Amino acid sequence: MADYREMWSELGLDLALHDKLCAALPPLFEEAFLHQKDRPSGMDYFNMVIAEVHGLRIKELVDHKRNGGFVVGSFCVYVPEEIVLALGGLMVGLCAGSQFWVPEGEKVLPRNLCPLIKAAIGAKLSKTCPYFQSVDLVVAENTCDGKKKAWEEMGRLVPTHVMDLPNRKSKEGMDLWRSQVRELIKRLEDLSGRKLTYEGLMEGIRKVEAKREALRGLYETRKADPVPISGIDSLVVSQIAFYDDPERFTSMTNQLVQECRDRVSSGFGVFPKGTKRILLTGSPIVVPNWKVHHILETSGASVVVEENCTGTRYFKGSVDTSPKDLEGLIDALADRYMNGINCACFSPNQGRLDDVVELAREYKVHGVVDVTLSFCSTYQVEEGALKRRLKEEGIPLLCLETDYAPGDEGQLRTRVEAFLESL
Amino acid sequence: MADYREMWSELGLDLALHDKLCAALPPLFEEAFLHQKDRPSGMDYFNMVIAEVHGLRIKELVDHKRNGGFVVGSFCVYVPEEIVLALGGLMVGLCAGSQFWVPEGEKVLPRNLCPLIKAAIGAKLSKTCPYFQSVDLVVAENTCDGKKKAWEEMGRLVPTHVMDLPNRKSKEGMDLWRSQVRELIKRLEDLSGRKLTYEGLMEGIRKVEAKREALRGLYETRKADPVPISGIDSLVVSQIAFYDDPERFTSMTNQLVQECRDRVSSGFGVFPKGTKRILLTGSPIVVPNWKVHHILETSGASVVVEENCTGTRYFKGSVDTSPKDLEGLIDALADRYMNGINCACFSPNQGRLDDVVELAREYKVHGVVDVTLSFCSTYQVEEGALKRRLKEEGIPLLCLETDYAPGDEGQLRTRVEAFLESL
Repeated sequence: MADYREMWSELGLDLALHDKLCAALPPLFEEAFLHQKDRPSGMDYFNMVIAEVHGLRIKELVDHKRNGGFVVGSFCVYVPEEIVLALGGLMVGLCAGSQFWVPEGEKVLPRNLCPLIKAAIGAKLSKTCPYFQSVDLVVAENTCDGKKKAWEEMGRLVPTHVMDLPNRKSKEGMDLWRSQVRELIKRLEDLSGRKLTYEGLMEGIRKVEAKREALRGLYETRKADPVPISGIDSLVVSQIAFYDDPERFTSMTNQLVQECRDRVSSGFGVFPKGTKRILLTGSPIVVPNWKVHHILETSGASVVVEENCTGTRYFKGSVDTSPKDLEGLIDALADRYMNGINCACFSPNQGRLDDVVELAREYKVHGVVDVTLSFCSTYQVEEGALKRRLKEEGIPLLCLETDYAPGDEGQLRTRVEAFLESL
Repeated sequence: MADYREMWSELGLDLALHDKLCAALPPLFEEAFLHQKDRPSGMDYFNMVIAEVHGLRIKELVDHKRNGGFVVGSFCVYVPEEIVLALGGLMVGLCAGSQFWVPEGEKVLPRNLCPLIKAAIGAKLSKTCPYFQSVDLVVAENTCDGKKKAWEEMGRLVPTHVMDLPNRKSKEGMDLWRSQVRELIKRLEDLSGRKLTYEGLMEGIRKVEAKREALRGLYETRKADPVPISGIDSLVVSQIAFYDDPERFTSMTNQLVQECRDRVSSGFGVFPKGTKRILLTGSPIVVPNWKVHHILETSGASVVVEENCTGTRYFKGSVDTSPKDLEGLIDALADRYMNGINCACFSPNQGRLDDVVELAREYKVHGVVDVTLSFCSTYQVEEGALKRRLKEEGIPLLCLETDYAPGDEGQLRTRVEAFLESL
């Protein structure tokens, strides 16, 4: 690996602490990924991306900024990357998946808050995330209480623009959201000194749609039995979608998809035919949080689809590109986000229950595992409705709550094994 | 006390369980209230209201319904009582303040949720709250995550209408809220078979404004040193405002205010002049949650003002009654709620910090106590901003987290005593 210490130093990282973080990742990745059998060779690229997670991509961001571009960080699938790309920016998902940052986050946030939010703030406070150090602006969003209120702290640490979401998908809620998309455009126009054009936005939409289409292709191959790719490999591809160069990501994912299709054609899979197939749903699962996938797939199950923000919600629904004027296209873009993504921050959120049932049928799963992060109230309360719906549909459900701290793997594994035996 | 068992039975209460609840309240009330010295004689009425909390007032609700009226239950100061009154209904705050209901609520809600929400659901599930059993409709509101999502469960137990609130007080957020006020009007028009008129709404506004004015008068007297009334007595008056007959409440409160004014004139108080004066802020404190006030005022302090939903937020701001048409008056009503109430569910919520500082000056307090309910993330995250602001202003702050379970009184008292000594 190249030596990035000078770059990290220029970005203001706490190098000593960052070294500790960097030392922790490879063994974690090795245990979760490299011990798998028969991985597609197309995963080599994604292995490299993880190995270079704080190196190569950061250098690209730095170079992009040197060439007059800007970089936006985000924490949510509601932030429209199309607009960022259209205005000559790059968007990256920010660091929020490791226990490493949680204690630092707890210095300014209550302990009784979801680990993702504490890690997000902790990553910035501890100066150990080169993505955070590279962004010109964080584009945050009012989804859950924890995030909404934590942005008030975030805004003290880094320039932050907050998009307001409604709590219900109503006509008035949609009006609010469309206004927020326009506010973001204005903010990014100010930041970039550019003006959003119809052609620019269409190009942004094309790039992001190509990325979504590649992921849809990947997921499509996971409907096969045997599955051509493990759930955890598919997960890391989805996670990387949040911060890799969009066109390179699309190209590499399409290569992987072709390999998976070939495997499906020849009946080759990473788990034996007949392996118990699981749909995983719930809170977002961001890098390097691979805990539950790893436990499931080393306990004899295969995760074949994720109904979450690092799964189908990332690519569900396309932007209607039929409007011939910029305002119409902006509305269509806003609509794709509001209609496509069924987050538990909305009430009611019937769409998610429908999505879970539909995906469970399409992917012919044996059971559903609902994974919520500790203190993620929206998903945890929604578990009641999910339980009822899946019972009606006759689909077995296991509910797991976990955070980023090690120590609960044994307990989770015991529950997973009992669930798998019952299927 | 009259025998209400037949009425309770007709309302579908679980009588055996309800008996246990009724047996628990009097000793709690006695300990918290009746041991106080020099209480204003005007508190006799409010003592009676508490003693008759499940009796007399319920009978009034039942009679009101028999006479063709309707009853609405609510959990939040955002639900406009003016509209309910204007359409011939009564509004009552629903039961959510006792540990008695928490275990039942935890059967359908996660344990990691605020006790107020668990108690609300538990009160309905356990059939021990005659208010819940009397309401034709619950008018709920999307404020925090816990409430927003719990309404999905509530809607299965009792007819529930949810008002959507924005997460930010913007122009678009205001448009959303105004539309929600109109949706409520429509729902209540359907329920009552009546049509909202300008005159009817003005009359509703007049009644509620009179109630607010009475409470403002009461709070005004608490600026005196010595204070003419204890904080816990004032608190229970505010709590009773949520469910008593508005005109009787106003009249009885005005009598109490006159008595308190006379006390101020003569320099008579319930605590010695120079007693440490406390502003209490944070999560709502609903009947029969008197824990922290009791601890503070039996530890040598005097709570002289509450910046919370059972305090100043209940009566802050008046409706602008200058519009001469119904639509204009509805907008003015909506605006009073959005502008007057600074709940931590909004981000940013700078207004609350300003309110706390302003009230601290007006009431000449020695310190502020921020009381949050466990898992009340919005207020708990906001504590960071509150700490910074009060430090800037040189106002001492104590942050307490508690729930409805007994057992933490000793620990709270120790922290309170240390804080008071430091002032």
